[in-house]
Amino acid sequence: MRVAVLGGDGYCGWATALYLSNKGHSVAIADNFSRRQWDHELGVQTLTPIRPLSERLRIWQEITGNSIDLFVGDVTEYDFLSSVIKDFEPEAVVHFAEQRAAPYSMIDRKHAVFTQVNNVVGTLNLLFALREFQPDCHLIKLGTMGEYGTPNIDIEEGYITIEHNGRRDTVPYPKQPGSFYHLSKVHDSHNIMFTCKAWGLRATDLNQGVVYGTVTYEVALDEALINRFDYDEVFGTVLNRFCVQAAIGYPLTVYGKGGQTRGFLDIRDTVRCVEIACLNPAAQGECRVFNQFTEQFSVLDLARMVQTAGEKLGLTVEVDHLSDPRVEAQEHYYNAKHSKLIELGLEPHLLSDSLLDSLMNVALQYRDRIDASVMLPRINWRQPCNERRTQSTREPTPVVESSLEIVGKSGGKNGNRIAARNSRRELNSKVGS
Amino acid sequence: MRVAVLGGDGYCGWATALYLSNKGHSVAIADNFSRRQWDHELGVQTLTPIRPLSERLRIWQEITGNSIDLFVGDVTEYDFLSSVIKDFEPEAVVHFAEQRAAPYSMIDRKHAVFTQVNNVVGTLNLLFALREFQPDCHLIKLGTMGEYGTPNIDIEEGYITIEHNGRRDTVPYPKQPGSFYHLSKVHDSHNIMFTCKAWGLRATDLNQGVVYGTVTYEVALDEALINRFDYDEVFGTVLNRFCVQAAIGYPLTVYGKGGQTRGFLDIRDTVRCVEIACLNPAAQGECRVFNQFTEQFSVLDLARMVQTAGEKLGLTVEVDHLSDPRVEAQEHYYNAKHSKLIELGLEPHLLSDSLLDSLMNVALQYRDRIDASVMLPRINWRQPCNERRTQSTREPTPVVESSLEIVGKSGGKNGNRIAARNSRRELNSKVGS
Repeated sequence: MRVAVLGGDGYCGWATALYLSNKGHSVAIADNFSRRQWDHELGVQTLTPIRPLSERLRIWQEITGNSIDLFVGDVTEYDFLSSVIKDFEPEAVVHFAEQRAAPYSMIDRKHAVFTQVNNVVGTLNLLFALREFQPDCHLIKLGTMGEYGTPNIDIEEGYITIEHNGRRDTVPYPKQPGSFYHLSKVHDSHNIMFTCKAWGLRATDLNQGVVYGTVTYEVALDEALINRFDYDEVFGTVLNRFCVQAAIGYPLTVYGKGGQTRGFLDIRDTVRCVEIACLNPAAQGECRVFNQFTEQFSVLDLARMVQTAGEKLGLTVEVDHLSDPRVEAQEHYYNAKHSKLIELGLEPHLLSDSLLDSLMNVALQYRDRIDASVMLPRINWRQPCNERRTQSTREPTPVVESSLEIVGKSGGKNGNRIAARNSRRELNSKVGS
Repeated sequence: MRVAVLGGDGYCGWATALYLSNKGHSVAIADNFSRRQWDHELGVQTLTPIRPLSERLRIWQEITGNSIDLFVGDVTEYDFLSSVIKDFEPEAVVHFAEQRAAPYSMIDRKHAVFTQVNNVVGTLNLLFALREFQPDCHLIKLGTMGEYGTPNIDIEEGYITIEHNGRRDTVPYPKQPGSFYHLSKVHDSHNIMFTCKAWGLRATDLNQGVVYGTVTYEVALDEALINRFDYDEVFGTVLNRFCVQAAIGYPLTVYGKGGQTRGFLDIRDTVRCVEIACLNPAAQGECRVFNQFTEQFSVLDLARMVQTAGEKLGLTVEVDHLSDPRVEAQEHYYNAKHSKLIELGLEPHLLSDSLLDSLMNVALQYRDRIDASVMLPRINWRQPCNERRTQSTREPTPVVESSLEIVGKSGGKNGNRIAARNSRRELNSKVGS
């Protein structure tokens, strides 16, 4: 099958492109390297050193004999995107090419507007390009479980049947997204649903949970193929951050009470879910929604699991509660359905089995590259304009630096506690409560 | 009360600005004249000749002694919009400054992208400007009843209480918009709802039905104050088009079966609804939704009412069914609640009372300005790229022109029927079924 992976240089996109290529599919990547650009803007780096895409692709071909086509450009430019669709003639397009960090979208107005325009226009362009040049192609769009928010009723997969005043209908599940980023995904979902109806496009909207893990079979073939491991406050997700914090003896930074519950999945399940979607395309005119996660945990659950895993490795892991920089329920009902991908053959990897191998050990392996100054939250959902990371990373306090030196070498606990306390004081003065 | 009317040179905006000014409020208009620009782009004109805004405002001041402040600029430019908020310090902002025509958004990709970016960015800018400079200001945002689509259950005002698997929650009413324009309004609604929650803004989202009528007390004070009367296929709404068609003896163009049912209201109720919202602001952090219409009709209901009204004026009015260029249910359940504005004091004007005075007679008065070539639908929802109006208006068939000459002078029926039939044939070859 011919599959185009938009955003194939990013975290999920790279793992997906290699997985599909290894399964014998003909794969093309389109990317404009904006994910790397955002690292430069924010003054952060992935924990794992990633190579230029041209080198990654060359080595992939050397090892496997499979070549992956590369189109360099921006999906918000229609000429570029339509030329990819016309030239490559994909049977499926997997669309990862969006700005995907909630905190990034909450920095200030420019970042909010950028996120929504970038994501909405990229997706609109893709819908038009498919309609014009490849109307039978199956669109596989990455959405997010965050589109639903945390309603006080069970979350269904995309649609809900409502009985109301004696009548009944099945309607799109109501959305309550919690950031300008999550909002952009809701906008996309509505746009996609409409074009399936109006133009008969076929689409699968994968409402993905929080992805963890770095290692897939394919990226493990060579260090040059290694995937991203983001742990900074903007692009890092909570589990990555906790593992990195544990690795340097830094307390885990739980936002608020830690009762925030979300769906999670292993990156190895992400790639398999995309393959399942490819192999089981939506019908013409169908906008199908799968909730793509395998387990749900609260943030405090995760902290405790990391604590336990850390202890097995001889680390002392403490847990801190910071005031929550986000606007979200800190304790809430959460029961999200996720049976459709299981029914199509997904066999989940469970976090309890992956935590040590795919997360803690990677964090320890690259411990020398950890920058502790990028992990504390400085983007406050309640403020319309937040100090940019590039500024804050220029002001590391000496206490933090020296204590991390000590921790890095000896695992000593006291210096680390001082560092954490200082950083926390700094945070609370910024975030408020 | 200090009220800024964004988009105050447009149809609803102009009537609202004058009404509020006449009620003694301090009013500012912000506008970039894009509504006039779109007429030029499409090669169409409002039936009623409207004057430059500077002249309208001068005459308003001469007649009433009330001055209205004017800010010329584009709400998608933050520097402009934030300066309006900072300088004028409004207690309420009424936001009409959006591209508001569904067919315009369906012309092609550029118009779809323009509509969504223009509307979403303008509203995001406004939310940020209010948060930064006027956080207590009440946002009154024009949404549309078209956000809801036509579900098979009752439409509530913005939110619905759902019982599901033994639990209950009140959630945003699920949206099923039917064009890229309607989608843009849904995107806005989600963005507004989020900022009320995150930032404590106060907002009223007025999900307005189809507005009809030209005459309000204020615009009737002088012909220089006259409001728009759009009847072209892009910006004209169905009732205006029917009245114009009746005025020139042209058959009413019903799309499909005509069972499409929508909410409608008189422009005199629009302005009163906005005033009611101003005088009863939403609470801090509240995103309140009112369904702003007074009566619901099917398209065929309207055609029959125009037929009856036309007969009273001695006109012979026929009804034609064209294949529907839109993707919509042609027969469906429709029961939309609209009690909140009534509870706050709205006393509706009913269509049966306004049809002759405010619509048919205006259409007859300006009959010489009618361009029959702009009324047939050429924008097909099922096509990703539609021929532009400027092209089609350059190719009027001689048969249409001569027959309309005859109708305009004598009211003769046969020539007109030929013209209609010819145009219809042309339409069907473009739109398909």
